[in-house]
Amino acid sequence: MIAGTPEPPYLAVIFSSQRRPGDEGYGAMAERMVALAKEQPGFLGVESARDADGFGLTVSYWRDEAAIAAWKAHADHTVARRLGRDQWYADFQVRVCRVERQYGVGDR
Amino acid sequence: MIAGTPEPPYLAVIFSSQRRPGDEGYGAMAERMVALAKEQPGFLGVESARDADGFGLTVSYWRDEAAIAAWKAHADHTVARRLGRDQWYADFQVRVCRVERQYGVGDR
Repeated sequence: MIAGTPEPPYLAVIFSSQRRPGDEGYGAMAERMVALAKEQPGFLGVESARDADGFGLTVSYWRDEAAIAAWKAHADHTVARRLGRDQWYADFQVRVCRVERQYGVGDR
Repeated sequence: MIAGTPEPPYLAVIFSSQRRPGDEGYGAMAERMVALAKEQPGFLGVESARDADGFGLTVSYWRDEAAIAAWKAHADHTVARRLGRDQWYADFQVRVCRVERQYGVGDR
Protein backbone atom coordinates (compact mmCIF):
# COMPACT_ATOMS: atom_id res chain seq x y z
CA MET A 1 0.00 0.00 0.00
CA ILE A 2 1.21 3.51 -0.79
CA ALA A 3 2.36 5.30 2.35
CA GLY A 4 0.70 8.61 3.19
CA THR A 5 3.80 10.66 3.91
CA PRO A 6 3.88 14.35 4.96
CA GLU A 7 5.20 17.19 2.82
CA PRO A 8 8.94 16.83 2.10
CA PRO A 9 11.62 17.09 3.23
CA TYR A 10 11.83 13.82 5.15
CA LEU A 11 14.10 10.78 4.81
CA ALA A 12 13.72 7.48 2.96
CA VAL A 13 15.67 4.26 3.49
CA ILE A 14 15.65 2.15 0.33
CA PHE A 15 16.39 -1.49 1.18
CA SER A 16 16.97 -3.62 -1.95
CA SER A 17 17.42 -7.33 -1.40
CA GLN A 18 17.66 -10.70 -3.08
CA ARG A 19 16.23 -13.48 -0.90
CA ARG A 20 17.66 -16.96 -0.75
CA PRO A 21 15.14 -19.76 -1.50
CA GLY A 22 13.01 -21.05 1.40
CA ASP A 23 11.27 -19.16 4.18
CA GLU A 24 13.42 -20.20 7.20
CA GLY A 25 11.52 -17.90 9.55
CA TYR A 26 11.84 -14.89 7.27
CA GLY A 27 8.14 -14.14 6.72
CA ALA A 28 7.28 -14.01 10.41
CA MET A 29 10.31 -11.84 11.18
CA ALA A 30 9.55 -9.47 8.32
CA GLU A 31 6.00 -8.94 9.61
CA ARG A 32 7.28 -8.42 13.14
CA MET A 33 9.85 -5.85 11.99
CA VAL A 34 7.22 -3.86 10.09
CA ALA A 35 4.95 -3.85 13.17
CA LEU A 36 7.85 -2.79 15.38
CA ALA A 37 9.04 -0.08 12.98
CA LYS A 38 5.56 1.46 13.01
CA GLU A 39 5.88 1.97 16.78
CA GLN A 40 9.15 3.89 16.54
CA PRO A 41 9.34 7.66 17.07
CA GLY A 42 9.70 9.48 13.77
CA PHE A 43 8.40 6.60 11.63
CA LEU A 44 6.36 8.02 8.73
CA GLY A 45 5.47 4.98 6.64
CA VAL A 46 6.70 1.90 4.79
CA GLU A 47 6.17 0.37 1.35
CA SER A 48 7.31 -3.07 0.30
CA ALA A 49 7.12 -5.37 -2.71
CA ARG A 50 8.85 -8.64 -3.54
CA ASP A 51 8.56 -10.43 -6.86
CA ALA A 52 8.32 -14.13 -7.58
CA ASP A 53 12.10 -14.40 -8.08
CA GLY A 54 12.76 -13.18 -4.54
CA PHE A 55 13.95 -9.69 -5.43
CA GLY A 56 12.41 -7.12 -3.12
CA LEU A 57 12.32 -3.43 -2.35
CA THR A 58 11.29 -2.01 1.01
CA VAL A 59 11.25 1.75 1.44
CA SER A 60 10.72 3.14 4.93
CA TYR A 61 10.14 6.83 5.56
CA TRP A 62 11.44 8.71 8.60
CA ARG A 63 11.27 12.18 10.07
CA ASP A 64 15.02 12.68 10.59
CA GLU A 65 18.43 11.01 10.98
CA ALA A 66 17.88 10.52 14.71
CA ALA A 67 14.82 8.36 14.01
CA ILE A 68 16.79 6.23 11.52
CA ALA A 69 19.70 5.84 13.95
CA ALA A 70 17.40 4.82 16.82
CA TRP A 71 15.65 2.21 14.68
CA LYS A 72 19.00 0.85 13.45
CA ALA A 73 20.14 0.52 17.09
CA HIS A 74 16.93 -1.20 18.29
CA ALA A 75 17.94 -4.55 19.81
CA ASP A 76 15.30 -6.68 18.03
CA HIS A 77 16.07 -5.01 14.71
CA THR A 78 19.78 -5.64 15.20
CA VAL A 79 19.10 -9.37 15.69
CA ALA A 80 16.88 -9.42 12.59
CA ARG A 81 19.53 -7.65 10.50
CA ARG A 82 22.16 -10.16 11.56
CA LEU A 83 19.88 -13.07 10.56
CA GLY A 84 19.19 -11.34 7.27
CA ARG A 85 22.86 -10.90 6.52
CA ASP A 86 23.77 -14.45 7.57
CA GLN A 87 20.78 -16.47 6.36
CA TRP A 88 18.00 -14.82 4.40
CA TYR A 89 19.64 -12.54 1.87
CA ALA A 90 21.97 -13.50 -0.94
CA ASP A 91 22.58 -9.80 -1.53
CA PHE A 92 21.28 -6.46 -0.30
CA GLN A 93 21.90 -2.73 -0.54
CA VAL A 94 20.77 0.10 1.73
CA ARG A 95 20.47 3.68 0.48
CA VAL A 96 19.61 6.55 2.79
CA CYS A 97 18.00 9.48 0.98
CA ARG A 98 16.45 12.87 1.54
CA VAL A 99 13.04 13.12 -0.15
CA GLU A 100 12.90 16.52 -1.83
CA ARG A 101 9.53 16.46 -3.61
CA GLN A 102 6.62 14.14 -4.28
CA TYR A 103 3.48 13.95 -6.39
CA GLY A 104 0.73 11.42 -6.81
CA VAL A 105 -2.14 10.30 -9.01
CA GLY A 106 -4.23 13.33 -8.05
CA ASP A 107 -1.56 15.94 -8.84
CA ARG A 108 -0.48 17.40 -12.16
CA MET B 1 18.64 -7.12 -9.53
CA ILE B 2 20.48 -4.71 -7.28
CA ALA B 3 21.77 -1.71 -9.22
CA GLY B 4 25.50 -0.97 -9.06
CA THR B 5 25.34 2.75 -8.36
CA PRO B 6 28.33 5.09 -7.90
CA GLU B 7 29.32 6.76 -4.65
CA PRO B 8 26.63 9.19 -3.42
CA PRO B 9 25.42 11.82 -3.83
CA TYR B 10 23.12 11.03 -6.74
CA LEU B 11 19.35 11.09 -7.16
CA ALA B 12 16.68 8.41 -6.79
CA VAL B 13 13.12 8.45 -8.10
CA ILE B 14 10.89 6.16 -6.05
CA PHE B 15 7.79 5.18 -8.03
CA SER B 16 5.20 3.37 -5.89
CA SER B 17 2.16 2.01 -7.69
CA GLN B 18 -0.89 -0.16 -7.40
CA ARG B 19 -1.76 -1.87 -10.70
CA ARG B 20 -5.32 -2.48 -11.84
CA PRO B 21 -6.05 -6.15 -12.70
CA GLY B 22 -5.21 -7.37 -16.23
CA ASP B 23 -2.17 -6.69 -18.38
CA GLU B 24 -3.70 -4.44 -21.10
CA GLY B 25 -0.32 -3.85 -22.71
CA TYR B 26 1.38 -2.90 -19.46
CA GLY B 27 4.10 -5.58 -19.39
CA ALA B 28 5.43 -4.80 -22.85
CA MET B 29 5.41 -1.06 -22.17
CA ALA B 30 7.16 -1.49 -18.80
CA GLU B 31 9.95 -3.48 -20.48
CA ARG B 32 10.23 -0.89 -23.23
CA MET B 33 10.46 1.97 -20.73
CA VAL B 34 13.23 0.24 -18.76
CA ALA B 35 15.20 -0.34 -21.97
CA LEU B 36 14.68 3.28 -23.02
CA ALA B 37 15.58 4.68 -19.59
CA LYS B 38 18.88 2.78 -19.74
CA GLU B 39 19.80 4.72 -22.91
CA GLN B 40 19.27 8.15 -21.32
CA PRO B 41 22.17 10.43 -20.35
CA GLY B 42 22.70 10.40 -16.60
CA PHE B 43 20.88 7.11 -16.00
CA LEU B 44 22.66 5.17 -13.24
CA GLY B 45 20.46 2.13 -12.64
CA VAL B 46 16.98 0.81 -11.88
CA GLU B 47 15.47 -1.68 -9.44
CA SER B 48 11.92 -2.97 -9.57
CA ALA B 49 9.67 -5.43 -7.74
CA ARG B 50 5.93 -6.08 -7.89
CA ASP B 51 4.10 -8.47 -5.59
CA ALA B 52 1.24 -10.83 -6.38
CA ASP B 53 -1.35 -8.22 -5.29
CA GLY B 54 -0.13 -5.77 -7.93
CA PHE B 55 1.68 -3.40 -5.58
CA GLY B 56 5.03 -2.40 -7.01
CA LEU B 57 8.08 -0.28 -6.35
CA THR B 58 10.45 0.92 -9.06
CA VAL B 59 13.46 2.98 -8.04
CA SER B 60 15.52 4.61 -10.78
CA TYR B 61 18.84 6.29 -10.09
CA TRP B 62 20.07 9.41 -11.88
CA ARG B 63 23.14 11.61 -11.95
CA ASP B 64 21.33 14.94 -11.50
CA GLU B 65 18.06 16.85 -11.82
CA ALA B 66 18.74 17.60 -15.49
CA ALA B 67 18.79 13.86 -16.24
CA ILE B 68 15.47 13.35 -14.42
CA ALA B 69 13.88 16.30 -16.20
CA ALA B 70 15.05 15.10 -19.63
CA TRP B 71 13.67 11.60 -19.02
CA LYS B 72 10.35 13.01 -17.79
CA ALA B 73 10.10 15.09 -20.98
CA HIS B 74 10.97 12.19 -23.33
CA ALA B 75 8.06 11.84 -25.77
CA ASP B 76 7.67 8.04 -25.46
CA HIS B 77 7.86 8.22 -21.67
CA THR B 78 5.22 10.94 -21.65
CA VAL B 79 2.85 8.69 -23.62
CA ALA B 80 3.56 5.79 -21.25
CA ARG B 81 2.92 7.96 -18.19
CA ARG B 82 -0.43 9.10 -19.58
CA LEU B 83 -1.47 5.47 -20.22
CA GLY B 84 -0.33 4.59 -16.70
CA ARG B 85 -2.39 7.37 -15.17
CA ASP B 86 -5.48 6.64 -17.26
CA GLN B 87 -5.46 2.84 -17.50
CA TRP B 88 -2.86 0.80 -15.64
CA TYR B 89 -2.56 2.29 -12.16
CA ALA B 90 -5.27 2.54 -9.54
CA ASP B 91 -2.89 4.68 -7.50
CA PHE B 92 0.71 5.86 -7.61
CA GLN B 93 3.17 8.15 -5.89
CA VAL B 94 6.47 9.58 -7.09
CA ARG B 95 9.16 10.71 -4.67
CA VAL B 96 12.36 12.40 -5.85
CA CYS B 97 15.24 11.96 -3.41
CA ARG B 98 18.90 12.74 -2.95
CA VAL B 99 20.85 9.60 -1.98
CA GLU B 100 23.23 10.61 0.79
CA ARG B 101 24.88 7.31 1.73
CA GLN B 102 24.74 3.61 0.92
CA TYR B 103 26.09 0.32 2.17
CA GLY B 104 25.73 -3.27 1.08
CA VAL B 105 26.16 -6.89 2.08
CA GLY B 106 29.95 -6.60 1.95
CA ASP B 107 30.17 -3.51 4.17
CA ARG B 108 29.96 -3.23 7.93
